[in-house]
Amino acid sequence: MPTSKNPGRLRDFVTAFAALLENKPPQAQILHDGGALLQQLIAVDDWLPDAYAQPQPERYQQYLLHADSAERFSIVSFVWGPGQTTPIHDHTVWGLIGMLRGAEYAQAYRRSAGGSLQAEGAPLKLTPGTVETLSPEAGDIHQVRNAFADSVSISIHVYGANIGAVQRSVYAEDGSSKAFISGYSNSHLPNIWDRSSELKKS
Amino acid sequence: MPTSKNPGRLRDFVTAFAALLENKPPQAQILHDGGALLQQLIAVDDWLPDAYAQPQPERYQQYLLHADSAERFSIVSFVWGPGQTTPIHDHTVWGLIGMLRGAEYAQAYRRSAGGSLQAEGAPLKLTPGTVETLSPEAGDIHQVRNAFADSVSISIHVYGANIGAVQRSVYAEDGSSKAFISGYSNSHLPNIWDRSSELKKS
Ligand SMILES: [Fe+3]
Ligand SMILES: [Fe+3]
Ligand SMILES: [Mg+2]
Repeated sequence: MPTSKNPGRLRDFVTAFAALLENKPPQAQILHDGGALLQQLIAVDDWLPDAYAQPQPERYQQYLLHADSAERFSIVSFVWGPGQTTPIHDHTVWGLIGMLRGAEYAQAYRRSAGGSLQAEGAPLKLTPGTVETLSPEAGDIHQVRNAFADSVSISIHVYGANIGAVQRSVYAEDGSSKAFISGYSNSHLPNIWDRSSELKKS
Repeated sequence: MPTSKNPGRLRDFVTAFAALLENKPPQAQILHDGGALLQQLIAVDDWLPDAYAQPQPERYQQYLLHADSAERFSIVSFVWGPGQTTPIHDHTVWGLIGMLRGAEYAQAYRRSAGGSLQAEGAPLKLTPGTVETLSPEAGDIHQVRNAFADSVSISIHVYGANIGAVQRSVYAEDGSSKAFISGYSNSHLPNIWDRSSELKKS
């Protein structure tokens, strides 16, 4: 599997995010300051190894890039094949979505008084450089899809947990739900931690 | 690359180690309590994926298994081919060595009054289940070698930093030293974080 030109970019994001969480800030600060860090990460598209940018014809891929030792956060590369879409789902933890390549539509949903789900406003279009936030307290039920029918889109997600271990739900439009745990598409993570050659140069 | 039967064993070690470091304990406590955790990890040899247990004919391998988000610790699988040995080296950070498979000899060194290095006592033989500690304050210059001339040995090392980024030294017996950063042999880490199937069962 090829490696990226600039793994240090992801490593710097991980260590900066860990520093942000160090003093256990409130969720609003995580989303604000963490969102700014994610915006920096996705501002340049030179760091994602090709192995974590591969679509599959059957369904969208969720490649774990890093999991925090204490499962305080995880970083996932979402790769959308042409026309692919998620079910309507929730998260139960805070989330940040940064658009890296292509574009996606995110449609928020709300429960109506009768219990069914209703689309809340128009779908939001995310384009490269855009960061979206998700908060369970503010309502975190949505459906996300590739904006393109003929090309691949990639977004980088950060969650306030090891999302591969979070019990959450998918929904039908009638409001009925089914428990799910999303897991990961990859059995190996990128090793972004070898700094021997760059430090030798410095 | 094959995956292990029991990746949860390594994941539980990572999260327990993170919990230990949470309150910034003194080094003696990290070595004591962390050593007990490492002893539990290596008590059963069912969790190391084969990809991180492969020797190479040229030299011993250092496979990173996990790096902490804040580079507070790293976990490395050391794989010794028959007869392989390290140079005499230091670490500059605390370390824990747990013997998983085979055996190794660790020879401690001290500086003499004249500045040269002298072996300190007999080499220590590590056998499976044994945990050794390393502390820069107590003296952490040593040389480690496979105890076997005809088979592979594997030890699991935990360091108080991302050891792939630590500036340290190798030594000649006359006490002269050369700066080095050890780096890693692997470009991909095991993904030990997907808990979707085990949680579905429970
Ligand atoms: Fe989502
Ligand atoms: Fe050593
Ligand atoms: Mg961590």
